[in-house]
Amino acid sequence: MKIATVALDDKVFIGIVEEMGILALNDVEEKRTGRRSYGEDLVTCIEQEGFLEKVKDLIHWVEEQNDKANFYIPMEKVTFLAPIPRPRKNIFCIGKNYVEHAIEMGSKEDIPEHVMVFTKAPTTVIGHMDGILEHNEVTEQLDYEGELAVVIGKRGKGIEQEEALDYIFGYTILNDITARDLQKKHKQFFIGKSLDTSAPTGPWIVTSDSIPNPNELNITTKVNGEIRQQSNTKHFIFPVEEVISVLSKGMTLEPGDIIATGTPAGVGKGFNPPRFLKGGDSIEIAVEGIGTLFNKVIKDV
Amino acid sequence: MKIATVALDDKVFIGIVEEMGILALNDVEEKRTGRRSYGEDLVTCIEQEGFLEKVKDLIHWVEEQNDKANFYIPMEKVTFLAPIPRPRKNIFCIGKNYVEHAIEMGSKEDIPEHVMVFTKAPTTVIGHMDGILEHNEVTEQLDYEGELAVVIGKRGKGIEQEEALDYIFGYTILNDITARDLQKKHKQFFIGKSLDTSAPTGPWIVTSDSIPNPNELNITTKVNGEIRQQSNTKHFIFPVEEVISVLSKGMTLEPGDIIATGTPAGVGKGFNPPRFLKGGDSIEIAVEGIGTLFNKVIKDV
Repeated sequence: MKIATVALDDKVFIGIVEEMGILALNDVEEKRTGRRSYGEDLVTCIEQEGFLEKVKDLIHWVEEQNDKANFYIPMEKVTFLAPIPRPRKNIFCIGKNYVEHAIEMGSKEDIPEHVMVFTKAPTTVIGHMDGILEHNEVTEQLDYEGELAVVIGKRGKGIEQEEALDYIFGYTILNDITARDLQKKHKQFFIGKSLDTSAPTGPWIVTSDSIPNPNELNITTKVNGEIRQQSNTKHFIFPVEEVISVLSKGMTLEPGDIIATGTPAGVGKGFNPPRFLKGGDSIEIAVEGIGTLFNKVIKDV
Repeated sequence: MKIATVALDDKVFIGIVEEMGILALNDVEEKRTGRRSYGEDLVTCIEQEGFLEKVKDLIHWVEEQNDKANFYIPMEKVTFLAPIPRPRKNIFCIGKNYVEHAIEMGSKEDIPEHVMVFTKAPTTVIGHMDGILEHNEVTEQLDYEGELAVVIGKRGKGIEQEEALDYIFGYTILNDITARDLQKKHKQFFIGKSLDTSAPTGPWIVTSDSIPNPNELNITTKVNGEIRQQSNTKHFIFPVEEVISVLSKGMTLEPGDIIATGTPAGVGKGFNPPRFLKGGDSIEIAVEGIGTLFNKVIKDV
């Protein structure tokens, strides 16, 4: 199942993305029960006990209606916001989680022995089709990083690897836009990773029941239509279960937490000479079983 | 003026801390106008246009009342929560912002040339007198770091150093509790800095009008009554204005953002042999013009 935060005529709502179009969760519920339980904040929904079961029940009900076609909003009418437009904490990001990428960023010395985590501020998040600011007043080395992102579904601490997948609500795509010059200059990665608009996310979350194994998904990044990154999450140094287990050792994970799992080889900095982003460039990231996230770089205003 | 988030009989409210006791903001307003505009979330208050002027007006009104003594709640009756118990994003932390501390963490090579920023998850925050978990299942090197923390008062990006102080709502004290073994093992600092309860904060925020120069404040940390850190913020490598200016280059700062400004020399790791924290230890951090933050290390449960 695909769940999205969408906007239509200035209204923001939680939508279920189906082949026939989008089901507005609150509208469907109201037609069935008279109630509207689902606000515009997906994290609040995820926190609700039995949220997914209730949603499945509503979808099933729609499918039984004679006028079911009337329930679906055509996909092209809506705007996809980021699934979680304003995360309640920074996005957790795993650094150098593919061997070939670690090497292209430096050398074999850069392959990490332990999970490396940095964060991106919530102010970085934008949605599918939104513009990525060029930020040419602060960086000359804006770069892309196509990534699978995990969305946590329930609270947990000290989570064992064996149970880690049970804590996942679903998966989305994240472009971990990075100012390479700032990343290097400030040593700790945060500043180079947190420029406004540097976390395009979406277009939607695919729930975990649709993706039994997150560690075996094709991932491709194109810049202006040209393939730059092409890999599979089976090449993770630290698979998703290990990342969740390490992160939750002594730190409580919460519903709505987003973990970007790292990027494969083929970033702009990895080319010789480097191929950084500039105004007008388009970036498309496709992850198997999820979809494609598209954004363009635009001039700062 | 000192503003706190306090709890009394299971109710949480915003309080003004005065010599005569604590003024419950909503109660005072209700007695004067019949309205209760100030919820329990200080960030929402800070976001309100003219918040501080309205508060000063209410305090002035109380002082004019004949029965003013009845307005004050005795300090010993309340519990101080962290001023912002649940920040809306990770806490920004400045690494190695005092020369002597940079050297004790390694050598002169560790003195940064540029502002170094990492973050702590919002789940780390606890208040004055709250227990710091020992976390002995994940770390053997729990350490203290006494710091001045800045609370941002208004939204801004590309803030010039000359105007940076205008963006500050106030100041508080933060103990940047760090698991040194995890900090080292995972390279990027985040994991070692984000164990639950590793950001004691408070007891209150002193508004910026009471502290004209944040770069000249005595700061002292005691462990079990013994002075471990004693310095002055005039020894900052990067003063508060520069930190705000660098952080806001391309990244929007928002009301309620917390910036921990770095710790002086004298952390446990700096001793030979190191003197890490253990269950039962008490830590007291005093910053001139603000007050004293007190916490004890307790066994994990």
